Amino acid sequence: MIKTMPANLTELESEVARLRHELQSLEVERKDDDEITIANYLLTRLEQLGVTSVFGVPGDFNMPLLDYIEDHPRIQWIGNCNELNAAYAADGYARVKSHSIGVVVTTFGVGELSAINGIAGAFSEMVPVLHIVGVPSTVQLKTKPLLHHTLGDARFDVFTKAAEQVTISQAMLMNKVHAAAEIDRILIDCITRARPVYLTFPSDMVSEKVSAKRLKIPLSRTLPPNDPQVEQFVLDEIIKVIGEAGGDMAILVDACVLRHDVQDEVKDLVTATRFPVYSTPMGKTTVSEQFDRYGGVYIGSISDPAIKERVESAKLILSIGGLKSDFNTGMYTYRIPTTHTIELHSDHVLVQHAHFPGIGMKQLLPKLTPRLREFRGRASELAVSKAKLEVPIERDNDITQSYFWPRVGKFFKKKDVIVAETGTSNFGILDVPLPEQSVFVSQMLYSSIGWSVGSTLGTALAARNKGLGRVILFVGDGSMQLGVQEISTMTHHGLTPIIFLINNSGYNIERNLHGMNRKYNDIANWKWTSLLTTLGDVDGTLSRSYTVRDKSGLEKLLDDPEFSNAGKIQLVEVIMGKYDTPRALKLAAELSGKYTEKSAKQL
Amino acid sequence: MIKTMPANLTELESEVARLRHELQSLEVERKDDDEITIANYLLTRLEQLGVTSVFGVPGDFNMPLLDYIEDHPRIQWIGNCNELNAAYAADGYARVKSHSIGVVVTTFGVGELSAINGIAGAFSEMVPVLHIVGVPSTVQLKTKPLLHHTLGDARFDVFTKAAEQVTISQAMLMNKVHAAAEIDRILIDCITRARPVYLTFPSDMVSEKVSAKRLKIPLSRTLPPNDPQVEQFVLDEIIKVIGEAGGDMAILVDACVLRHDVQDEVKDLVTATRFPVYSTPMGKTTVSEQFDRYGGVYIGSISDPAIKERVESAKLILSIGGLKSDFNTGMYTYRIPTTHTIELHSDHVLVQHAHFPGIGMKQLLPKLTPRLREFRGRASELAVSKAKLEVPIERDNDITQSYFWPRVGKFFKKKDVIVAETGTSNFGILDVPLPEQSVFVSQMLYSSIGWSVGSTLGTALAARNKGLGRVILFVGDGSMQLGVQEISTMTHHGLTPIIFLINNSGYNIERNLHGMNRKYNDIANWKWTSLLTTLGDVDGTLSRSYTVRDKSGLEKLLDDPEFSNAGKIQLVEVIMGKYDTPRALKLAAELSGKYTEKSAKQL
Repeated sequence: MIKTMPANLTELESEVARLRHELQSLEVERKDDDEITIANYLLTRLEQLGVTSVFGVPGDFNMPLLDYIEDHPRIQWIGNCNELNAAYAADGYARVKSHSIGVVVTTFGVGELSAINGIAGAFSEMVPVLHIVGVPSTVQLKTKPLLHHTLGDARFDVFTKAAEQVTISQAMLMNKVHAAAEIDRILIDCITRARPVYLTFPSDMVSEKVSAKRLKIPLSRTLPPNDPQVEQFVLDEIIKVIGEAGGDMAILVDACVLRHDVQDEVKDLVTATRFPVYSTPMGKTTVSEQFDRYGGVYIGSISDPAIKERVESAKLILSIGGLKSDFNTGMYTYRIPTTHTIELHSDHVLVQHAHFPGIGMKQLLPKLTPRLREFRGRASELAVSKAKLEVPIERDNDITQSYFWPRVGKFFKKKDVIVAETGTSNFGILDVPLPEQSVFVSQMLYSSIGWSVGSTLGTALAARNKGLGRVILFVGDGSMQLGVQEISTMTHHGLTPIIFLINNSGYNIERNLHGMNRKYNDIANWKWTSLLTTLGDVDGTLSRSYTVRDKSGLEKLLDDPEFSNAGKIQLVEVIMGKYDTPRALKLAAELSGKYTEKSAKQL
Repeated sequence: MIKTMPANLTELESEVARLRHELQSLEVERKDDDEITIANYLLTRLEQLGVTSVFGVPGDFNMPLLDYIEDHPRIQWIGNCNELNAAYAADGYARVKSHSIGVVVTTFGVGELSAINGIAGAFSEMVPVLHIVGVPSTVQLKTKPLLHHTLGDARFDVFTKAAEQVTISQAMLMNKVHAAAEIDRILIDCITRARPVYLTFPSDMVSEKVSAKRLKIPLSRTLPPNDPQVEQFVLDEIIKVIGEAGGDMAILVDACVLRHDVQDEVKDLVTATRFPVYSTPMGKTTVSEQFDRYGGVYIGSISDPAIKERVESAKLILSIGGLKSDFNTGMYTYRIPTTHTIELHSDHVLVQHAHFPGIGMKQLLPKLTPRLREFRGRASELAVSKAKLEVPIERDNDITQSYFWPRVGKFFKKKDVIVAETGTSNFGILDVPLPEQSVFVSQMLYSSIGWSVGSTLGTALAARNKGLGRVILFVGDGSMQLGVQEISTMTHHGLTPIIFLINNSGYNIERNLHGMNRKYNDIANWKWTSLLTTLGDVDGTLSRSYTVRDKSGLEKLLDDPEFSNAGKIQLVEVIMGKYDTPRALKLAAELSGKYTEKSAKQL
């Protein structure tokens, strides 16, 4: 249990949190002697964290644990069709549930490796996911017999070694003495650092008993305070720089606002100060897109020109939770000099060229907001280029990308949860302002094709649990094929997403990036309207499917109140042109080509 | 290129082969100056190895390579629905093609991690598979920008680190000087050691030109010779021990006969000597099951009692290519003392208690066979317990496991390729003797649920290429759901497997191992007979689907010549009892429980 000194500040902070928790727990343990199985210890912790659904696939090494999950009165086992989809579902659940985590259970070797790409995605996108792997008994882990699900060479640790690459903490429950502390340690890492963690649970440890006393101390989410002197200095610096800019500042919110749980703090900031606020693609819906000071999505050169002009002409940009990946920045085309930026991150702050490591935005923001009130007058005067939702009038009746996205924009309602697959959908929906309290879910950094389907399962369960509105998925035909079976799980659990399946005969984003007319970007055509009945709605009562081939058909469907609130799962096959591409994606693909060329020249 | 001294004999041998090849190649390079792109260099090597199909999913980092594959006149690009299925397909292709390799192409991060479980399965089961990953340009690999498909933390090597756990050799084509040699090195490892290898191919290296001269030297499959003195000693020992046993010996063939390519040598041995020969489950069809000296499948306590008696009462067992995993040995229930065994492996021999490292069976067998001829008289007299194919007469019309497997046994024909999913199918088919020149494909050691579906795609392509017969898949409803989309790829490429889909409402093997009545072992019911039309046969002309609910229905179908040779893909939904279980699986599950209990007591 004695850890070596951690290498960086984040780890140090998490270690401090862990030690505090340990101390409190030890004190409690002296007072009481209740016992609980390790399985139920874990499930109680998950319940405390707000987990109501656990995803996964059964396997002989995890079934002893599944018994406890199936018997748990408030946690529901969601059996998936495959493990990758289960990991995506846990990711989607965590994104929408917020203040909670996603949980996926797989089996040793075969199951966990099938899920690893979903876990890597959660790492990349900073989503808190717990990956529990049911592994052989502690004796077998020591004696290493030639078991099924192994590589046949007695290397029982290879799967954990792979998992270490894509998770921030790992625990192996090899004895009951440390089990509870180990579970707490990785869960605290998961919730405070917003990254996936990994737990191997040997089949014989599941029913072992440990003290239940620690459970009386909730897991700490509290981050260590910023160093007060440095923090004060940073606040003064920020105020000084904004003053020098005459208060001409815009706020840019990005992915880590969501991931590091500062959405409330940011809301306080923007409403108190009334600075214009823009969002990156990955920060979409972090700030209400109906807020009168919200100006739309900034994505470098790909931005709507009016938005680009407003953002880049501001004397100062306050970037909160920035994540400057290629797709999220319009292929690195921000035209904002460092002298014009203040960046707040989870564990550091940048003011122009000055770095302030160890100053976290979660702790800083509540102190920054009152001090920025002095600029409210000036901030309110700054013009905001409002994002518009105008459906273009086109002569042709074909459903074009330029028409489709604003049109569905008008279909959205308050509290809708909108999931967009990496690719055409993600770029298509960029410019569409979304309703009040809606939640936008996408995976733009990791961009794993097919992620949105499994993710929608988790999203829909979290949305139902939180009392959010409809879940609406946009996915291309190519992407749908990767994880299509998980639609079955949605139907099975009475979930009612609306799935817009864009049938454009292949991988549209790939065509734009390379090989426009290549056969490898074609896919087999499916009978999409039979999908829901084939995969689970066997008597056709639980679902509805439609094909829309033109604007009139789409209009009619979107205006139909029965469609809008069907109370059953629905799939709409939208026939679109093979080479038709959303404006933003076309530009991104062009820039991507230029970027690759430019990089090559730097050789 | 200077490697540190390899740790073990196998590596040493492969290094010797590599160095020989290098020397020959360098000599050739001095004589000629043809140039070729690295992409085409690789494809030429693959063609030389007999590769006719390459599997995978496009992604922006691999598309430059896919251009070359699509344009290649003799290698076909098979675009899969997802990467895990693509890896399974490459595995299935390699198993049936033999003397060749399977090839799967994925993209950086998201694609390769999605495939990793299929690669791990190939490692475990010793199947030669090349995993090519299209990665960012060499410049990006060095400068590490915040690219999509990464973890967002500039660790570009994490995916390779994961791959190192489940492949025997890796090459990164970072410059053109070493590219050809690196490709050759991992391909030689792949074909001589029968395990997966991993190649990262940066997008800007694909069109770089290298000398084509090395291509004139074929890749060497030659294994280094056994040490003649040790080999002679081993041969003498074997003859002595067999003599002491009065020639009362049975031969047991296992998985590694296939994997290490000694099928021909074994055939020579058994026909020349006429010793009784038995197979393990993983060695099924390694020796013709119609050979008059073939006695059936030995699987310890789970064996047919007559077979068990014959094998365990022999004074000596010559085990060839043994792989003693839990499921393959009836949960370690061989009753054969070490003093009664000779074991031949790819890189060592065991004679009773004596170990002879470095003596490989491939080189030894051609010398052993002539020396064993002296026992032919005695060997021919040894009784063989013939495996019988009797369909039991049952009063009930329900399709039972005890009836189903022998009945389909009568449906099989010469040259059929029979694929059995891990689980019920794999155990159900054990006792069924298969026809002359048929090929049995299963994944009993790694046992990754869902493997058989993607694998059947590769199997069917290899079977077509080799002029084999029908491809027949047995898969349960639960297993089918994991990778169901790959059926679409089969239809798309005009493949015509017959799929027997056992609909028994869930995970039957799991029920038997744990949680017989647990909900987590139930699955959503699908409309199975709509599957083929929904997933690609949109106008219903390319496929046929059936449901059989009773014996009469099944009989009628199996006897229908139109079904037997339909020339289109067919799916038969076979309705079977939820709790009905093949004899061998029931016993295996019981033994598995006992084994776990016994292990726990050893604590």
